[in-house]
Amino acid sequence: MSRTVPLPKAKQPPARIQVQHVEPIVDCGRYPVKRTVGERVEVYASIFKDGHDVLRASIRIKPPGASRWQEEPLRPLGNDRWRGSFAVDAPGRWCWRIDAWTDRVATWQSEVRRKVEAGQEDLSGELLEGAVLLGRDSLTVEEGLAADAGDRHGQTSSPAYEVDVDRALARVGAWYELFPRSWGGFRGVADTLPALAELGFDVVYLPPVHPIGRTNRKGRNNTLAPGPDDVGSPWAIGAEEGGHDVLHPELGTEEEFDALVARAREVGVEICLDFAIQCSPDHPWLKEHPEWFNQRPDGTLKYAENPPKKYQDIYNVNFDSEDWRGLWDALLEVVLGWVRRGIKVFRVDNPHTKPVPFWEWLIAEVRRDDPDVIFFAEAFTRPAMMTTLAKIGFGQSYTYFTWKNTRAELVELMTQIVEWSPFYRPNFFANTPDILHEYLQHGGPPAFAARLVLAATLSPSYGIYSGFESFENVPVRPGSEEYLDSEKYEVRARALDGALLPLVKRLNEARHALPALQRVDNLRWLETENEHLVAYVKDDVVCVVNVDPHHEREGVCVIPVALRWPPAFEVHDVLRQETYTWRAGRNYVKLGPGEAHVLKALV
Amino acid sequence: MSRTVPLPKAKQPPARIQVQHVEPIVDCGRYPVKRTVGERVEVYASIFKDGHDVLRASIRIKPPGASRWQEEPLRPLGNDRWRGSFAVDAPGRWCWRIDAWTDRVATWQSEVRRKVEAGQEDLSGELLEGAVLLGRDSLTVEEGLAADAGDRHGQTSSPAYEVDVDRALARVGAWYELFPRSWGGFRGVADTLPALAELGFDVVYLPPVHPIGRTNRKGRNNTLAPGPDDVGSPWAIGAEEGGHDVLHPELGTEEEFDALVARAREVGVEICLDFAIQCSPDHPWLKEHPEWFNQRPDGTLKYAENPPKKYQDIYNVNFDSEDWRGLWDALLEVVLGWVRRGIKVFRVDNPHTKPVPFWEWLIAEVRRDDPDVIFFAEAFTRPAMMTTLAKIGFGQSYTYFTWKNTRAELVELMTQIVEWSPFYRPNFFANTPDILHEYLQHGGPPAFAARLVLAATLSPSYGIYSGFESFENVPVRPGSEEYLDSEKYEVRARALDGALLPLVKRLNEARHALPALQRVDNLRWLETENEHLVAYVKDDVVCVVNVDPHHEREGVCVIPVALRWPPAFEVHDVLRQETYTWRAGRNYVKLGPGEAHVLKALV
Repeated sequence: MSRTVPLPKAKQPPARIQVQHVEPIVDCGRYPVKRTVGERVEVYASIFKDGHDVLRASIRIKPPGASRWQEEPLRPLGNDRWRGSFAVDAPGRWCWRIDAWTDRVATWQSEVRRKVEAGQEDLSGELLEGAVLLGRDSLTVEEGLAADAGDRHGQTSSPAYEVDVDRALARVGAWYELFPRSWGGFRGVADTLPALAELGFDVVYLPPVHPIGRTNRKGRNNTLAPGPDDVGSPWAIGAEEGGHDVLHPELGTEEEFDALVARAREVGVEICLDFAIQCSPDHPWLKEHPEWFNQRPDGTLKYAENPPKKYQDIYNVNFDSEDWRGLWDALLEVVLGWVRRGIKVFRVDNPHTKPVPFWEWLIAEVRRDDPDVIFFAEAFTRPAMMTTLAKIGFGQSYTYFTWKNTRAELVELMTQIVEWSPFYRPNFFANTPDILHEYLQHGGPPAFAARLVLAATLSPSYGIYSGFESFENVPVRPGSEEYLDSEKYEVRARALDGALLPLVKRLNEARHALPALQRVDNLRWLETENEHLVAYVKDDVVCVVNVDPHHEREGVCVIPVALRWPPAFEVHDVLRQETYTWRAGRNYVKLGPGEAHVLKALV
Repeated sequence: MSRTVPLPKAKQPPARIQVQHVEPIVDCGRYPVKRTVGERVEVYASIFKDGHDVLRASIRIKPPGASRWQEEPLRPLGNDRWRGSFAVDAPGRWCWRIDAWTDRVATWQSEVRRKVEAGQEDLSGELLEGAVLLGRDSLTVEEGLAADAGDRHGQTSSPAYEVDVDRALARVGAWYELFPRSWGGFRGVADTLPALAELGFDVVYLPPVHPIGRTNRKGRNNTLAPGPDDVGSPWAIGAEEGGHDVLHPELGTEEEFDALVARAREVGVEICLDFAIQCSPDHPWLKEHPEWFNQRPDGTLKYAENPPKKYQDIYNVNFDSEDWRGLWDALLEVVLGWVRRGIKVFRVDNPHTKPVPFWEWLIAEVRRDDPDVIFFAEAFTRPAMMTTLAKIGFGQSYTYFTWKNTRAELVELMTQIVEWSPFYRPNFFANTPDILHEYLQHGGPPAFAARLVLAATLSPSYGIYSGFESFENVPVRPGSEEYLDSEKYEVRARALDGALLPLVKRLNEARHALPALQRVDNLRWLETENEHLVAYVKDDVVCVVNVDPHHEREGVCVIPVALRWPPAFEVHDVLRQETYTWRAGRNYVKLGPGEAHVLKALV
């Protein structure tokens, strides 16, 4: 609400210095901007005052948990714009604001200096003023001009703003998704961890590990008539054995789970659990807390629907329940329980179908206790909700990447993601248990290679779901994006032996070695004169991908003059371990189906 | 400050509906957006919620002085964006916000409709729910689907925003500046008013009309040794006779001033007074209120300086005086006094050297009493201050127009002005008593004609200072923008007989007749293939100006396909009263030095 009149009720008149157009802020400061540990926050503001006084300004910074404000200088860039920066070296919510003030001593010195330079001789009045300002009995011109400035008068402060700082994994990471029941449960997964670490994966994400309901259990290929041996969907959470805070007995013991988490820590990989707020008909909460669920007027509980679709195996909680506080606290306690067992990364199922204020509250509560915790939003919905979930606290988000296969689609996608980058961090999964895109269904191994390189080089975080590396490409039926014999509904014997794994390893090594691939806002598209060749540069790394999975394609890769690279330079292909000589301008490129160059330019 | 945790202390959980990215607002709503009476405010917002409920939204509007909120609908545009509008039919501060809510009845109807369409037969549970929702004992499907929706549940409101509405003169007007002492005082000006009205002027602006100091009075051509007959600068305000609230006796009597204001009203012209907050050494306030001025430690008052320049004939007030409240109130009372005498337009001298909060307070106080009052900022300074003065309440502002003469300079200027147009209204004075640009000094009558057409067609408000219409072009010395024998320091016999006046009249008629010339945000530049030919279109009006005052120039005026005008159409030149046939694409144009076309396209 704009202030109609700044009622001058105070003893002092309102502050005269204006501090405007502060950056970086998100939605007028309603949400924090995001950074990861070790980054700097570059701060800008317009600072000015009526008249010709000498102004000074600084950034005041309060790290998470600190009680004192630190200070960093702001310096004028000209035309009333000022710049400064501060480093964020710990995760959590940082608070900052801008202070600006008049330096009366420097103002006096500036005026006297101009008078001296203009040859004005009688400065007695000025020296009288200077003496009062500096608290001295008398003053010579030389003493006055040499005096330390540093006076702070009429200070104005901007509103306080926040930076939400995550550890680096929130920005950069290679993810692998697997269903533990296909890998021998917790023990089998633990045995696989060293090999996953060796491949360069940073996070292993497990779909829900809780007991699975029996009532209305789904059969293989999502059928409604399960056999007695059908294992059900892990997202039908809850059974006699317990709900969201309990492990599925068939996956292993409590000790085996803890051993898995410990093993992951040893080999430098993190375990990510799924947080899906929905209950099977057998979830204990349905009996213990029927008031937490949607009820019909006759008191019966309502299963989930999106008419005309019915989800008889799922009950959604009612976030507006009369006991919404009890429900919210119980959900928070579920997450905190897993945090206490060493889980610091959560993939959140369908957050866009739950209230935004609930997520803002839950994430802040969890991260106040442990700012290392990262929430990854599985939201595939319209941009307003996608971006809002990022703004209110999700540290990473799924994207539309799986559906963007042409150069034009990728350009549109990345333009949006770069624009959102102050608060939204993408994670490019190349496939998921729900999304086998027709490009992969029909493109064969070259399609998988191309999509892998795009995901791993366009986005600092990317992932694959188990089976991708073996070119799994058969849908449950034509036109569907669901897998045939999906692991969502049955056990599949899995092993880490896919033919794509060597490329995965080389890409993960390159991503570690090349900081250029760890950012998203440094992307620039390059001309190729062939629509099938998608080329881009990030700082000193050039990528060219043939997105045609069926044909060899040739074209050029144009290095624009604006990059100011030398006329000729070497590029090292980190995938092929070959070195070529390139030049500013057009470079001939020929790539087989789905092949790619990832070139470190020696510039 | 971003809200860390939306603490759920209330009985109800926090509202789930999100209202974001509301337009039109200025600086996050800190300042009001500006409109004039009769315009509409087009409102946009992103409105969404988790899940699939049917949402509704409206704009709530409170006109100035009203106690009740009105309501206008918002309608969805798709992708979570909504649009609506409201009319502003009175001057003053309007308040508005956005409300959004869930319509549970419509949500229920939508779900039931989809179930019916899918052939679902047992809807007993749904009908039970519907009956409860509609407060009935029982319900059939037909009754339920036919029921009036209109339920409002879980309402969310945006913050309240403001619109500052001025009367139309704040946006559109032709101004004429004259020194009354050169026109026979108030009586002479009153006699000239009918002719000025006949020429199409809307405002006659008078430099300060108050007593002029004798001490340190400036002589002719700004010399320091005045003769006994020198009249002094009207901006050296205050003498024995009084200060800002008194008329200079040499200009006429109180009655003659009131008669001038009354005569102006009769002929449809407004008198604009100058409000210059500075005092001559003889201003009564220096004796009555020495505490309102800057003082040296020895108690003497300090005249104005901008080292090494000294302004011994001027004392500036000290807005931070211990009695700042008394000073501010006295300045407010000065303005209110003139408002009570019928003055509704003030040109404010150098507002950028006085505190921003002072202006915000003063303008709001005056306009709360009388929202017809318009303040016109004489600020020539950096953009941050120029825009801030507009945002905090000035209804019109001077611009950099006088210094922008080439096509490239004009494009840059207008780009900035269009960007600022939600809160900043330009007034293009083609000259002022302080600014005789070298383009006018050297260009002769064609330069004056070109600048007149540019000012009158680029900006809805424009003005000339007396002498412009007679091609006055001699500077006080080479390289100066000051006039020789400037009226600022002496009396010049003036009459309304300049050779440019017929063009002024035709332009003012065109500006009245063509709404396209009454806006600034409808501007689009046109290609001419000749840098001397500056061409632009505003809606259906095409202007082409030869800004070369020395040579005839020929080129084309390209009507772009994107305008979707017919292949061939007539254009009527409102300056020459001729009609030509033009076409989409290139149209041959030849213009003499400084000549212009102002073409109404019949499309």
